[in-house]
Amino acid sequence: EMAISLWKNLLQTTKRRILQQRRVSLYNGAHGYEEELIKKKLQQFAGGSINLSKEDNGVAILTLNNPKLMNAFTGSMMLELQERVTELENWKDGKGLIIYGAGNTFCSGSDLNAVKAISNSQASSDTNKDGMNMCMFMQNTLTRLMRLPLISVALIQGKAIGGGAELTTACDFRLMTPGSEIRFVHKHMGLVPGWGGAARLVHIVGSGTALRLLGGAARVDPETALRLGLSEETLSSSDGTGALEEARAWLSQYTEGPASVIRAVKKVVTAGRELPLEAALRTEKDVFGTVWGGPANLQALLKKTK
Amino acid sequence: EMAISLWKNLLQTTKRRILQQRRVSLYNGAHGYEEELIKKKLQQFAGGSINLSKEDNGVAILTLNNPKLMNAFTGSMMLELQERVTELENWKDGKGLIIYGAGNTFCSGSDLNAVKAISNSQASSDTNKDGMNMCMFMQNTLTRLMRLPLISVALIQGKAIGGGAELTTACDFRLMTPGSEIRFVHKHMGLVPGWGGAARLVHIVGSGTALRLLGGAARVDPETALRLGLSEETLSSSDGTGALEEARAWLSQYTEGPASVIRAVKKVVTAGRELPLEAALRTEKDVFGTVWGGPANLQALLKKTK
Amino acid sequence: EMAISLWKNLLQTTKRRILQQRRVSLYNGAHGYEEELIKKKLQQFAGGSINLSKEDNGVAILTLNNPKLMNAFTGSMMLELQERVTELENWKDGKGLIIYGAGNTFCSGSDLNAVKAISNSQASSDTNKDGMNMCMFMQNTLTRLMRLPLISVALIQGKAIGGGAELTTACDFRLMTPGSEIRFVHKHMGLVPGWGGAARLVHIVGSGTALRLLGGAARVDPETALRLGLSEETLSSSDGTGALEEARAWLSQYTEGPASVIRAVKKVVTAGRELPLEAALRTEKDVFGTVWGGPANLQALLKKTK
Repeated sequence: EMAISLWKNLLQTTKRRILQQRRVSLYNGAHGYEEELIKKKLQQFAGGSINLSKEDNGVAILTLNNPKLMNAFTGSMMLELQERVTELENWKDGKGLIIYGAGNTFCSGSDLNAVKAISNSQASSDTNKDGMNMCMFMQNTLTRLMRLPLISVALIQGKAIGGGAELTTACDFRLMTPGSEIRFVHKHMGLVPGWGGAARLVHIVGSGTALRLLGGAARVDPETALRLGLSEETLSSSDGTGALEEARAWLSQYTEGPASVIRAVKKVVTAGRELPLEAALRTEKDVFGTVWGGPANLQALLKKTK
Repeated sequence: EMAISLWKNLLQTTKRRILQQRRVSLYNGAHGYEEELIKKKLQQFAGGSINLSKEDNGVAILTLNNPKLMNAFTGSMMLELQERVTELENWKDGKGLIIYGAGNTFCSGSDLNAVKAISNSQASSDTNKDGMNMCMFMQNTLTRLMRLPLISVALIQGKAIGGGAELTTACDFRLMTPGSEIRFVHKHMGLVPGWGGAARLVHIVGSGTALRLLGGAARVDPETALRLGLSEETLSSSDGTGALEEARAWLSQYTEGPASVIRAVKKVVTAGRELPLEAALRTEKDVFGTVWGGPANLQALLKKTK
Repeated sequence: EMAISLWKNLLQTTKRRILQQRRVSLYNGAHGYEEELIKKKLQQFAGGSINLSKEDNGVAILTLNNPKLMNAFTGSMMLELQERVTELENWKDGKGLIIYGAGNTFCSGSDLNAVKAISNSQASSDTNKDGMNMCMFMQNTLTRLMRLPLISVALIQGKAIGGGAELTTACDFRLMTPGSEIRFVHKHMGLVPGWGGAARLVHIVGSGTALRLLGGAARVDPETALRLGLSEETLSSSDGTGALEEARAWLSQYTEGPASVIRAVKKVVTAGRELPLEAALRTEKDVFGTVWGGPANLQALLKKTK
């Protein structure tokens, strides 16, 4: 029973999200998830911000902004990330997304002082409940981020640690600046990833490498990341502005063209990544139907034939 | 409901096809697919041919033959491909398959003049229907091709473009001659793959590389293809006869041995590729049962023990 | 019907095993599997042993011990392997596992004389039944081995052939000594893998490489294995003691830390490997809940904040 409804939910949610981009969450009340409760808690731990700038060329820049704490996520930043993702879901002209951190570093995960304060504010069973609610809150947001019909890049300067490393796996690509590092440090915190970073990492680098990265908790430098398939390219700039320009140029290779087509490209790849082959083939057919005979297709056909 | 029946269909179809090689199609009337209608339409766009030659050593050569149009698929070629695949499904002695194109080039996808004529022949909603029917027709054929219990090779000379690039992904392996290219040019036609090429590409090279290939629409030369895992080897011959001989020799490493065993090898790998691990393990057990205690097994056992 | 119950069983079994480490087998009476019958048969073919030594540091050493036959599995060794796996499932302090063979070689699969004796002892339809029962017996054991919450290494000296090659794929990692080889020789025995080696191999090296390894039945030396992703590292020692020390040191990079955390790391990776992405994300959340707020987590939090 439970397994069937799990799978039913799984396949329905996935197809709906890929095709219609409806806001469907991984967790709801049926999973013991209390969204309103955790949002109220998160509001109490304020600081930093998540900024979004949507450019005319269809590429948005999302900035993690809490440089005093290496852009660690406070409670209010988690709430803002959710709002920004909603904004991106509603942006019909979008084609690409670059996520980067202020102050020449990416992100160090959760603000541990907030985590500790939440942990200490209550009896231990409630502590656990808060932790699980936070975990589900972030998984909901990052799963929606991963499935945006935008080609997404994590631009990694400085350090992407813990939850910051997990955040990079919600993007399609990772670009690293010289001297930067990705580090799944969870083991040293007595933890495993909880923001979905382990499941997504297995899909990116395979289960053997994922086990080594999580079990070893070692620093991954740009060269190693490239070799493991965790990064696409090592940029040449080390400063923020130069690196952002390089990332923009790199991404533009893939986002050039009509939004309807670029978004469809991302959708067929998402289907291939998340669904068994037959279901992915059927989804590809449906996505193909959204561009076949469309304006970009008819125009190209006119040019190529006489 | 829909999701359960989708999955039910998925698993049943996959197992049946792998084990029994019954002709089970991905799309039927229940998906709005009108096979007879689209076959009638395709007949109107004649030209070229698909030739099949089955050799005594258990290897078949399938030739795409429409060199004036770089072996683009006319309507009648799509129909012939379906017939050839049926013939291969019924060939119980088959072990290998090489697909290649006439005139020293692979295939440039659909014949755009036929596509345009179909598009222009009717009101726009019907146009879309024809496009979707063509898409489902080709996905049905290529899914059956992919699951043949034959070890299959796409021998790429010249260009494999658009639908031609998609066709190569329905084979187990790709071999390229010097100077040849694979190019998922769909974006420039205002499209995404519709013959299943996106879903299959994700399985071959991973979702990151697939997104780069589809989003960038760039030429992939033999060296790059090798590095990305899209090609197995760069051949040394550039001329048709020499390349075909090289491909035959390459394939023979894997097709040597009794047909029952080689076909079983392909089946367990297909199961591993398409099914979740537990279902693949169960299918492996069933395929193992088809060779265990068989003539080749008993003979080998006799030789190895005294 | 069958497909639904197949999937239902699949997802339930997988989650239960990953989270609760209950002994749930892949095959039972409903699959025509007769465990008591095959155990009685296997007892008749005695010889060799499987030894287990659990060390204080949480790493266990499992030795395949039948050097006269290159550590081929007799019937009694198959039975002992099952017992050792049960012992490891009950070892709550375990973090790592190294499997290696006595006499400086890994394992040559089944003892063919036993296989032949079983084959000859009866009418041919029963022979087939015995073969299938043996296949299901070994798949049950090796699936349980693969899912142990231990980071596991196959230390390959000399030869890992046939079933021996399959056994290496039930481990998370493979380390090879100079001059050693892995060889899926099944084709030359008129067979395909039946101990789950094909399904697991596809997950480790991808379906293309798996097809080449099974279809070609060629020797894979350490250098090739490294390139294909079949091995993690080539050790420098060739003798047994030195190689074991090297393997211990290699593994210790990943097993350092509290057992609860290391076991959780293995569980989230297993989920990512076996389940579709959404189900893996949900399992990651559940595993996260087993360490969040636990002693190792609280201690680390205390150290990092003031």
